[in-house]
Amino acid sequence: MSPKPLDYESLNENVKKVAYAVRGELYLRASELQKEGKKIIFTNVGNPHALGQKPLTFPRQVVALCQAPFLLDDPNVGLIFPADAIARAKHYLSMTSGGLGAYSDSRGLPGIRKEVADFIGRRDGYPSDPELIFLTDGASKGVMQILNTIIRNGNDGILVPVPQYPLYSAAISLYGGSLVPYFLEEEANWGIDFNSIRQSVAAARSKGITVRAMVIINPGNPTGQCLSEANIRELLKFCFHENLVLLADEVYQQNVYQDERPFISARKVEIIAKILFDMGPPISKEVQLISFHTVSKGYWGECGQRGGYFEMTNLPPKTVDEIYKVASISLSPNVPGQIFLGLMVNPLKPGDISYLKFATESKAILESLRKRAHIMTDGFNSCRNVVCNFTEGAMYSFPQIRLPLKAIEAAKKAGKAPDVFYCLKLLEATGISTVPGSGFGQKEGVFHLRTTILPAEEEMPAIMASFKKFNDAFMEQYEDYRGYSRM
Amino acid sequence: MSPKPLDYESLNENVKKVAYAVRGELYLRASELQKEGKKIIFTNVGNPHALGQKPLTFPRQVVALCQAPFLLDDPNVGLIFPADAIARAKHYLSMTSGGLGAYSDSRGLPGIRKEVADFIGRRDGYPSDPELIFLTDGASKGVMQILNTIIRNGNDGILVPVPQYPLYSAAISLYGGSLVPYFLEEEANWGIDFNSIRQSVAAARSKGITVRAMVIINPGNPTGQCLSEANIRELLKFCFHENLVLLADEVYQQNVYQDERPFISARKVEIIAKILFDMGPPISKEVQLISFHTVSKGYWGECGQRGGYFEMTNLPPKTVDEIYKVASISLSPNVPGQIFLGLMVNPLKPGDISYLKFATESKAILESLRKRAHIMTDGFNSCRNVVCNFTEGAMYSFPQIRLPLKAIEAAKKAGKAPDVFYCLKLLEATGISTVPGSGFGQKEGVFHLRTTILPAEEEMPAIMASFKKFNDAFMEQYEDYRGYSRM
Repeated sequence: MSPKPLDYESLNENVKKVAYAVRGELYLRASELQKEGKKIIFTNVGNPHALGQKPLTFPRQVVALCQAPFLLDDPNVGLIFPADAIARAKHYLSMTSGGLGAYSDSRGLPGIRKEVADFIGRRDGYPSDPELIFLTDGASKGVMQILNTIIRNGNDGILVPVPQYPLYSAAISLYGGSLVPYFLEEEANWGIDFNSIRQSVAAARSKGITVRAMVIINPGNPTGQCLSEANIRELLKFCFHENLVLLADEVYQQNVYQDERPFISARKVEIIAKILFDMGPPISKEVQLISFHTVSKGYWGECGQRGGYFEMTNLPPKTVDEIYKVASISLSPNVPGQIFLGLMVNPLKPGDISYLKFATESKAILESLRKRAHIMTDGFNSCRNVVCNFTEGAMYSFPQIRLPLKAIEAAKKAGKAPDVFYCLKLLEATGISTVPGSGFGQKEGVFHLRTTILPAEEEMPAIMASFKKFNDAFMEQYEDYRGYSRM
Repeated sequence: MSPKPLDYESLNENVKKVAYAVRGELYLRASELQKEGKKIIFTNVGNPHALGQKPLTFPRQVVALCQAPFLLDDPNVGLIFPADAIARAKHYLSMTSGGLGAYSDSRGLPGIRKEVADFIGRRDGYPSDPELIFLTDGASKGVMQILNTIIRNGNDGILVPVPQYPLYSAAISLYGGSLVPYFLEEEANWGIDFNSIRQSVAAARSKGITVRAMVIINPGNPTGQCLSEANIRELLKFCFHENLVLLADEVYQQNVYQDERPFISARKVEIIAKILFDMGPPISKEVQLISFHTVSKGYWGECGQRGGYFEMTNLPPKTVDEIYKVASISLSPNVPGQIFLGLMVNPLKPGDISYLKFATESKAILESLRKRAHIMTDGFNSCRNVVCNFTEGAMYSFPQIRLPLKAIEAAKKAGKAPDVFYCLKLLEATGISTVPGSGFGQKEGVFHLRTTILPAEEEMPAIMASFKKFNDAFMEQYEDYRGYSRM
């Protein structure tokens, strides 16, 4: 009998090709162990509230009031909500027609897109146009839509950093494009190596691939590096010369843990470059650029609310119309997530009733993340055969694990990639649920794992001690005079 | 100079092919008129709260408390929230790890998937498995994911009713498949004509198309008909013989305005058929079936919250794994929307403190919709050259407009499709924003418009009077002794 349309062999091949490690074998095994009663520390995904981070109070008050607008008429509302939360809820409700239960425009509520534009304008020093800002159910949905717009067939290539966040590889597979990898330099603190990029592009072209876009993740996921202005300028120049769209994943822009390289947006660098260098007709040297942001990261960590946006720079109106049309198919991004986004880009100001509490909460989270970045990096670097760059930004640590040949052979025997083998053993021994480096890409024969820096600060020393105990025993067990995996 | 990657001519051709009328020319013109200060009645999209329907109080109380869990410790919380809302908020918070701000599993929270399974089991009389239920950001996102899983290339065909909800045509274009239309019979109250379906399939096959799936919308959008059990059984038999997946869009299952044909799910019919008729090995006569539901419709109308689910029947586990993997790319559906879904499928019971209020609110909405369905159908049928089937279910009225040849010629001169021409004139004259029938598909030379039945009941008589005034004047103006569009 012929297979049915939804039997495995009948499915869209692109769906089958998708690999998505963040919730892959390690996550599934961790979920099983949890069901069996084992305590699991889920550091596989940047999900701060799941690891105990408390939400900021003020935005939650505002959204709660927007969900229950009848409370605004309750004489007792002032007993449990501060006046500025009440005022802000009225502000957002006035932007909707029908409250949170009504579809918004498919691009999001105009009032909130205006607040996003104001935020971008303040951040970059150059005004932004709300018509070029689309709100989305988290940044990932925006990235997926844009990749679907760019990719025409298997000969369209997208430059993606390696290691990368697997959203990119997964979405490129799903839409049938070709991932063109460029390697970040671990020895240069995961910096960009332009020679490597040029080689990748040349190699892809020789295979008949039209490279059409380049992804940067700044601050880096999983690698944690922060790009300098000079680096970004160089990237834009490259994109201009090679005729690439730059997709700037800037979701970690609030998560910076060093002071030498504060976050600078690709958009700002592009605008400055245009003003300084563009001597030809106004359109000649523009780079098409789309940047992504979210309420899931920063000190907000509101992952479950699914709020995000993308902003388009130098895109022609006809293309913006097409993107709008496709966004319309699923009607509208969720409205509560839009309000979180509004609150994030238009935060409380000194003098507001709730400001002090809001500022104290935000600062405490960010300072603690900075401390945790240090505890984790130092912890990894104290372990046998582990080396780790400092987490300059984002929420991850990506240590390299130098595996003894004996461990690599044992992994082979068990039918596992060596880093998967290591991470599974780590999980079984300690409950720490990480993602093997192979899920993000790494140089042949070099092994890593990714973990978030999100476990509670007070639990961090015990977790790192538990990691060290496991690792050092593992290295002892598999010690091999013949040598180790490559660096 | 060669075009840039996001210039219109460089885009994915499938993106350009997408047509989406619900927010198309009419909607854009209506938005412009609104900006200019004209009062617009947006009946282009089934968005009840935007037209004044109040949200049900109890679910909003529960979700507000989940958003602001710190209120649960506030000694004053009992002054503005009833005890059962507090208890239910704790119930849902206990299902999360990290509250609404944490990503859930990509399939949704296990506890809520269990509540959905219990609901389906009660509804159909046959138990449902939570592992085969995935929560989504509204039903549309689920439909899109499933179509993306089925469609492999341009030779894969999906049977779609005509008139149809343009989500289907748009998503099929986007994923590069072929829409295979089957016509609903307007004269038989938009019933299914199996001869027409067989002809469509044969015609598609002769063009080299592999028909892989069939969409039904029950109750119908835009056509409002309710399918009988016998009809659905026949459809399933057809799907079995033709080896098709059945995609059952059942988002209007609460919206039924007649008593002869209460809603019956395709899943229930399939299970009964299997029990009664399956004499061969247990798997032989199964039809693969996916059904969709949402919090956006019914008496909930919580469109902006983006909550929905799909349930898979007779799918092999390997395919379910693939669907899970792809759902993981965008991490998780929004968590507040999941809680609305839980509240919808597990509503208050008689005896609960808030039950009476909840039941009163729900009943009032449903009864009013039933009345409005009548007012609207009767209103249309009182107009010159307008004929309209009764809205048995869903939220729409889809009258046929018999256009005089003179009007058709005037439309041609204006460069518009005749129904677009009529709807634009209606919009300019009355502020009523409808969608031309061509956006849903209709037989060649026959014209319709779609409007929702959602304007407030008390405004309905005035709206229908305003429609009649415009229509009858229009028919007067374009009166043509030569004749009319076909019926």
